[in-house]
Amino acid sequence: MSSWGNSVTISVFGESHGAGIGVVIDGLPAGEALDEEAILLQMARRAPGKDKAATPRLEKDFPEILSGVLNHTTTGAPLCAVIRNTNTRSQDYGNLLTCPRPGHADYTGFLRYHGFNDIRGGGHFSGRLTAPLVFAGAVCRQILARKGIILAAHIASVGGIADTPFDGVTIPDALLQRLSGTTFGLIDQNKEPEMRALIEECRLSRDSIGGTVECAIKGLPAGLGSPMFGGVENIISSVIFGIPAVKGIEFGSGFAGSALRGSENNDEFYYDGDIVRTRTNHHGGILGGISSGMPVIFRVAFKPTPSISRPQKTVDLSSHSDTTLEINGRHDPCIVVRAVPVVEAAAALAVMNLLKEGNS
Amino acid sequence: MSSWGNSVTISVFGESHGAGIGVVIDGLPAGEALDEEAILLQMARRAPGKDKAATPRLEKDFPEILSGVLNHTTTGAPLCAVIRNTNTRSQDYGNLLTCPRPGHADYTGFLRYHGFNDIRGGGHFSGRLTAPLVFAGAVCRQILARKGIILAAHIASVGGIADTPFDGVTIPDALLQRLSGTTFGLIDQNKEPEMRALIEECRLSRDSIGGTVECAIKGLPAGLGSPMFGGVENIISSVIFGIPAVKGIEFGSGFAGSALRGSENNDEFYYDGDIVRTRTNHHGGILGGISSGMPVIFRVAFKPTPSISRPQKTVDLSSHSDTTLEINGRHDPCIVVRAVPVVEAAAALAVMNLLKEGNS
Amino acid sequence: MSSWGNSVTISVFGESHGAGIGVVIDGLPAGEALDEEAILLQMARRAPGKDKAATPRLEKDFPEILSGVLNHTTTGAPLCAVIRNTNTRSQDYGNLLTCPRPGHADYTGFLRYHGFNDIRGGGHFSGRLTAPLVFAGAVCRQILARKGIILAAHIASVGGIADTPFDGVTIPDALLQRLSGTTFGLIDQNKEPEMRALIEECRLSRDSIGGTVECAIKGLPAGLGSPMFGGVENIISSVIFGIPAVKGIEFGSGFAGSALRGSENNDEFYYDGDIVRTRTNHHGGILGGISSGMPVIFRVAFKPTPSISRPQKTVDLSSHSDTTLEINGRHDPCIVVRAVPVVEAAAALAVMNLLKEGNS
Amino acid sequence: MSSWGNSVTISVFGESHGAGIGVVIDGLPAGEALDEEAILLQMARRAPGKDKAATPRLEKDFPEILSGVLNHTTTGAPLCAVIRNTNTRSQDYGNLLTCPRPGHADYTGFLRYHGFNDIRGGGHFSGRLTAPLVFAGAVCRQILARKGIILAAHIASVGGIADTPFDGVTIPDALLQRLSGTTFGLIDQNKEPEMRALIEECRLSRDSIGGTVECAIKGLPAGLGSPMFGGVENIISSVIFGIPAVKGIEFGSGFAGSALRGSENNDEFYYDGDIVRTRTNHHGGILGGISSGMPVIFRVAFKPTPSISRPQKTVDLSSHSDTTLEINGRHDPCIVVRAVPVVEAAAALAVMNLLKEGNS
Repeated sequence: MSSWGNSVTISVFGESHGAGIGVVIDGLPAGEALDEEAILLQMARRAPGKDKAATPRLEKDFPEILSGVLNHTTTGAPLCAVIRNTNTRSQDYGNLLTCPRPGHADYTGFLRYHGFNDIRGGGHFSGRLTAPLVFAGAVCRQILARKGIILAAHIASVGGIADTPFDGVTIPDALLQRLSGTTFGLIDQNKEPEMRALIEECRLSRDSIGGTVECAIKGLPAGLGSPMFGGVENIISSVIFGIPAVKGIEFGSGFAGSALRGSENNDEFYYDGDIVRTRTNHHGGILGGISSGMPVIFRVAFKPTPSISRPQKTVDLSSHSDTTLEINGRHDPCIVVRAVPVVEAAAALAVMNLLKEGNS
Repeated sequence: MSSWGNSVTISVFGESHGAGIGVVIDGLPAGEALDEEAILLQMARRAPGKDKAATPRLEKDFPEILSGVLNHTTTGAPLCAVIRNTNTRSQDYGNLLTCPRPGHADYTGFLRYHGFNDIRGGGHFSGRLTAPLVFAGAVCRQILARKGIILAAHIASVGGIADTPFDGVTIPDALLQRLSGTTFGLIDQNKEPEMRALIEECRLSRDSIGGTVECAIKGLPAGLGSPMFGGVENIISSVIFGIPAVKGIEFGSGFAGSALRGSENNDEFYYDGDIVRTRTNHHGGILGGISSGMPVIFRVAFKPTPSISRPQKTVDLSSHSDTTLEINGRHDPCIVVRAVPVVEAAAALAVMNLLKEGNS
Repeated sequence: MSSWGNSVTISVFGESHGAGIGVVIDGLPAGEALDEEAILLQMARRAPGKDKAATPRLEKDFPEILSGVLNHTTTGAPLCAVIRNTNTRSQDYGNLLTCPRPGHADYTGFLRYHGFNDIRGGGHFSGRLTAPLVFAGAVCRQILARKGIILAAHIASVGGIADTPFDGVTIPDALLQRLSGTTFGLIDQNKEPEMRALIEECRLSRDSIGGTVECAIKGLPAGLGSPMFGGVENIISSVIFGIPAVKGIEFGSGFAGSALRGSENNDEFYYDGDIVRTRTNHHGGILGGISSGMPVIFRVAFKPTPSISRPQKTVDLSSHSDTTLEINGRHDPCIVVRAVPVVEAAAALAVMNLLKEGNS
Repeated sequence: MSSWGNSVTISVFGESHGAGIGVVIDGLPAGEALDEEAILLQMARRAPGKDKAATPRLEKDFPEILSGVLNHTTTGAPLCAVIRNTNTRSQDYGNLLTCPRPGHADYTGFLRYHGFNDIRGGGHFSGRLTAPLVFAGAVCRQILARKGIILAAHIASVGGIADTPFDGVTIPDALLQRLSGTTFGLIDQNKEPEMRALIEECRLSRDSIGGTVECAIKGLPAGLGSPMFGGVENIISSVIFGIPAVKGIEFGSGFAGSALRGSENNDEFYYDGDIVRTRTNHHGGILGGISSGMPVIFRVAFKPTPSISRPQKTVDLSSHSDTTLEINGRHDPCIVVRAVPVVEAAAALAVMNLLKEGNS
């Protein structure tokens, strides 16, 4: 199902080469002002070809809002936003899948939909479907910011090259603001040339490279989330795995923490004035599924873009034989760069749900 | 919320020191025979103190089935199973939380429930609540086995000591059967002494150690799961993060795959007779959220048991001051050993849902 | 599915002749005191054979609360309550359905569960399953009363004999309190002899009689519920149809209102001090799915008890032939009397959900 | 919430005077051919001003399908359809509610959304929002027809004038086909002049009139639906109450049945060849929440259109005083005529969910 959320839900629709893509957001509070420029900025961060551009051409990509907004303010009714596809649909398109691309959903989608799914450009599985997600997240983060909750992510690694991780205890607002406005988000900006060089090398060798994204949520009130299946980790992971190419998620010390001892991984409490805090943040701001008031920190693993232009072995479903496939077209050699705002958007949606459900 | 699932749902209840714990399973198919011995075996694998016992005392722990089963066969009505707590409840228990234990849900639970939650033994956050989960999983895995789906997990690592991982392409049924019947599940059994020594060292030093669990699901039909938020990864992760102490999950090559190139991580398709398979399984049996027919492989990170008997700094919520806490009592120095059947149970529940929803 | 609710959920389990029946309530606020006597009273109103008894034997029927309550106060964790069946299960019971009873779920349950459902006493379809519903409602109505919301129902009709309906504008608290504590709830108590005579006549003629129940909810804040599918009517009806034998529901002027003109059915607004009210209440306290602040009024149609001891024609599924069936045993000739507290309980559950979801 | 459904979900969006309205349908099976002419016909039946027209101008109203359809066939991805509003939105519209219309959601919506909802033309509460519902139902009924399930509704009454009801046992396909293609659907077509006269009289007297709609679903396989809250009645009623102006629903003999005796209301089973049927159908095709194989029959009560042009008393929210309101504009004096295809559409959506969930 392409819908998600309990108290604030999104229903994402569209196929890469259909008439349009979009999202319906239901359950938004009424009376929230929407800053369209700020939404544009988030969508531009995700848009292809925007990374190096001096002046991103923001205008043409802005989704049309069909409902739920009046006088630049939410009405409380479902908000539907549509983004037109410029590749218009031809009515008699062949839609024949013969050779599934390795690492893509071509083969599994073929089985799932008995061959009727729109395979052009990946159809409903396309990374393009993250654009409505970023739109929805951009709406939510404006509402969250008014409640003192800010969030941002950075490229935690590209291949073997790692950025400095978030300090889980002290995260300056300025850092989060910088990250949430850039197209190549790094904490240690000195890493950019090295990462870019690796990406370029992969591109030139007709290959791709994976990476990780780390996200921080600051200002989330303590006491949100529920034990067992309603925990902050459950909610965040259930939306994060909706992003194509995600293959892993970890909170706080995560997998590295599983190699530690309790005496190393436990975070001691102390009083910072009247507020209970922890001196370290291996728990990633979540204990027993419930927010502790410390920053929520999580990392997401993205596999390398499966679309590479090298010849690859695959099967020909029409002749029931093995064959070799060469994928044409330009593809991102490293999806991680554009995935940063998508991870933030998913986090914003998760937090909107947690907030609305409260702790009563 | 302590319930989970769409087509087959579980609703878990109970607190560690209340009258009892249990689970309601709704949506099971009618007419499925239940082998109580096989359920007992799974519950014994998770039970404390069962690991080294030559003859596990299985009898006393078997849950009472209140409904949904007649003549050892499911009726299709909700199945409720109850496990009594032997620590009976005293009606005038103080229930005062003064010093939250580091790494536990004491503090966040206090905030979430405004001080009214049952804190004895962790209350509803206790690891004891995984017993009903194992029960539910044990019911499901019997049904799955009749459809040719078998699953098992092993201790992938304890601290820095790693077991051999699953070969994602060729997993003998015999291996899965061995693992799903043991209490210290390893692929490379030679690693057991070393792991046990590390755990014992942690115990003696009043400390604990984390680890990882790897799970394989074999025989899952291709074409199950849905794009975006209904994917196999979303469904599995949303239930796995319901297990206490889980801080991360990864599928297939996971985080390691994010350091690879596309040419390394893509799995090429080929025809194995009439069946499309991949020669490697970095995708962990899931592409675009949908099962590929290859084994589903995932790994789960467990933090070290937060209950350690060393003195730890914390706060005293009654006096609003910092203090030092010493936790008494016997605790598992490594929760990972007993977590193996819990991960399997969660996987079985996820698969039951995927199967029932089908791909029509 | 036998679970219901979004923010406060119930999961009902049990079969009439199994080991026990019960309910898990998840999402209750923490810190709510529970008055067990008041719960007992509600359950006694529904219990068979309690109607005429001078001193209802309340004690033996009280459900065992396994979780979610400590020191007579909700902990916020799921509350599980179990009621033992005194008809203990025999393990080798035949469970063969040969002749489905007309008007019962015997035949449809047989198809739904492929013959594996527990047919003894109606199994999971039994009216006995309303006992856990009344328990859950009794918990909720205590919480609601603290927020100024009180609700009660009465026997609106038995066969052709009608009680006086609620005055939708002015409903004294004392009336609701009287009704919610009685076993033969009428607004016009003079109707009792006539109704009892009709019921007795039906009993003596080995027949049964249907009736209607009318429920009023007073004090529900204005502005709750959502347009379209989240409306107050949708929520109440989705739980009310979970009561066996219900075949209809109407709000406000309902079916009678459909014969009126707009000028007759519209309720004019006026200021009663600072509060907006309506002079009539044909809208039953709900406009556009959202509460108006006026009392919510609805009526429920119950079919006559299908269990009658007259010979009835049916089929013999084993011989594939028509046959005649005579049902033995004592059955309520009019289920409506005991259904009154069940309708109230369902209403209380609906209101708990509406309140928790709020209007933010 | 404006979304509905479990296995096949709809998410309805839009406001009467916003940019557009529409629906996202998720969970449709892939590979289903869509006949756009047949969809147009259903939408024309609901459209205003279509009733008397010899040649309905169908073309301009057809929604744009943005996704989920390729080569006139469902792809299995979410289907989004958008209908443009011709009243374009003015960005600086006042949106001030001063005098709520009696019987409308003006006042309750104002409270629910704190005054930020779009009040023009009723906003999200407008009857115009039933157009996307009819679209979704028109898609579903094509799929259902291929499985032998046909459904149709008729005007069961207008004010006190009643049509002949469905014979619950024998419903000719031809009748259902006739009804589902007409704009003033009656079983006894001789009633049309009388009903039209009454409606016209109400219009001339600046008033309106209510009515009821009866719907039949033929060919629904026996054994669908679940006990308690997943029953056929629960599912149908939860979507039916999503239609504006609905105040009641009854199945089978419904409220009239509540005045009967068991011996009158029970439907005896018999073998019709190999098929178990009932000789009467007071149960409306549903026993214990599960379909019996007999036609499903239900009736829906619609209140009279609240928009009447007579002066009505109401409040002025700005001055906190009582006042008189005169509503201008042309409104349907009887909404029931155009509601017939909306009821059918809701029924089709309910049946799609029941079918997809099956009885396994």
